[in-house]
Amino acid sequence: MTERQPHTAAILLIGDEILSGRTQDANLAYISKKLNEVGVQVREARVVPDIEAEIVAAVNALRARYAYVFTTGGIGPTHDDITADSIAAAFGVACDYHPDAYAMMEATYPPGEFTEARKRMARTPVGASLIPNPVSKAPGFRVENVFVMAGIPRVMHVMLEGALPLLEGGRPVLSRAIGVYLPEGRFGTALGEVQTRFPDVAIGSYPFMREGRYGASLVFRAEDRGRLDEAAEAVRVMLSGIGGDPFDENPA
Amino acid sequence: MTERQPHTAAILLIGDEILSGRTQDANLAYISKKLNEVGVQVREARVVPDIEAEIVAAVNALRARYAYVFTTGGIGPTHDDITADSIAAAFGVACDYHPDAYAMMEATYPPGEFTEARKRMARTPVGASLIPNPVSKAPGFRVENVFVMAGIPRVMHVMLEGALPLLEGGRPVLSRAIGVYLPEGRFGTALGEVQTRFPDVAIGSYPFMREGRYGASLVFRAEDRGRLDEAAEAVRVMLSGIGGDPFDENPA
Repeated sequence: MTERQPHTAAILLIGDEILSGRTQDANLAYISKKLNEVGVQVREARVVPDIEAEIVAAVNALRARYAYVFTTGGIGPTHDDITADSIAAAFGVACDYHPDAYAMMEATYPPGEFTEARKRMARTPVGASLIPNPVSKAPGFRVENVFVMAGIPRVMHVMLEGALPLLEGGRPVLSRAIGVYLPEGRFGTALGEVQTRFPDVAIGSYPFMREGRYGASLVFRAEDRGRLDEAAEAVRVMLSGIGGDPFDENPA
Repeated sequence: MTERQPHTAAILLIGDEILSGRTQDANLAYISKKLNEVGVQVREARVVPDIEAEIVAAVNALRARYAYVFTTGGIGPTHDDITADSIAAAFGVACDYHPDAYAMMEATYPPGEFTEARKRMARTPVGASLIPNPVSKAPGFRVENVFVMAGIPRVMHVMLEGALPLLEGGRPVLSRAIGVYLPEGRFGTALGEVQTRFPDVAIGSYPFMREGRYGASLVFRAEDRGRLDEAAEAVRVMLSGIGGDPFDENPA
């Protein structure tokens, strides 16, 4: 087993609806950006169906390797919400009503409306700590380095807000971007040479077509602002030298 | 090593830009729907960065387990396009210019414009077969059960079109959906009972809020039209019985 890499995270999206194409995931990009703000880098993501063995295998592979794992989906009140049971199985503990979650939810619903289905949402792996949900009450939870959140974006967002202060991050990765209306094939080799000179700056090239013109966004990512700017300047000079007219872009 | 499950696929999205949140992936949902039309079910997806060892590990894990693997991203002309080399490494073969790809691309560009960078796009694992790219020429490729496609959606779409006739699918999974303006907590337990009676129909429940009202979409997926309709009817009767007013929805 590899040692966990500090300041890293993996994201596990749980749900048949993402794999079937019914639901277009938007949680991955949101979580990645928020984690980067606190200096945690997402290194891998997986999407698995609502099958316990698949969830268990993915959680155990990811939690062994990354400092943090964030899951989304499968913590609602219906039969296909099996994430709590699956996380419990991954950690080899029982899944049961969490006393605080149960009491809080019981107090939330009018008499007679804390149904068996809703009670399901008060179940967590034994020993889990709760992640508050100011939007719709039923909480997320944390077991060791695994944070379990809802799949519904506006609920996930508030759970993530609650989780962020608990993370130990490094320096956030800074980024900037340069656009140019030249095809990648014109500057690819020269760009690779700049990358070789700046091994501490990740340079990505993303082609685009805008208003019928081919071009590319060059995205620079590094922890050090000075090196980031030096690499970007080297690329700007290179592009200008072959007839490009590079311009600053929003890196996000 | 588990045996490959027939008529299944995994999708591997390759690229730092997806993990950083810069790029919102839309390829997963597109590929899933197209594969289902030919009877191939996507069972897992992963997102890995532009790091050879990560790509190799993911490809080898997935190709051992699923009938097909589809990758997107990393086959362009710049230094960060390392998918061809990585797939070659995964299969333990060399990566070199593919004679047909090289000749076709050489004929495509005007004299002097088939640059070193563009020549990179003619490289494949030795022995790969090409996947045509009518949009921008540089082809995708296939090695055994792994299909390697571009990340740019409109290029990926035509490559996938070329790959689909090569697949051996089973029966497509049919789906239908019922919507209801009731919170899941009101019908969750009864829905689970219907699921128990129809183990051959996957029933998913996806909550929504529309115009301030809580509700849920119940999505039914099965190979058999008759069983699909029976399960949906059972749920419709159940929902009507507790005061719901269920309606048909588009399952897609």
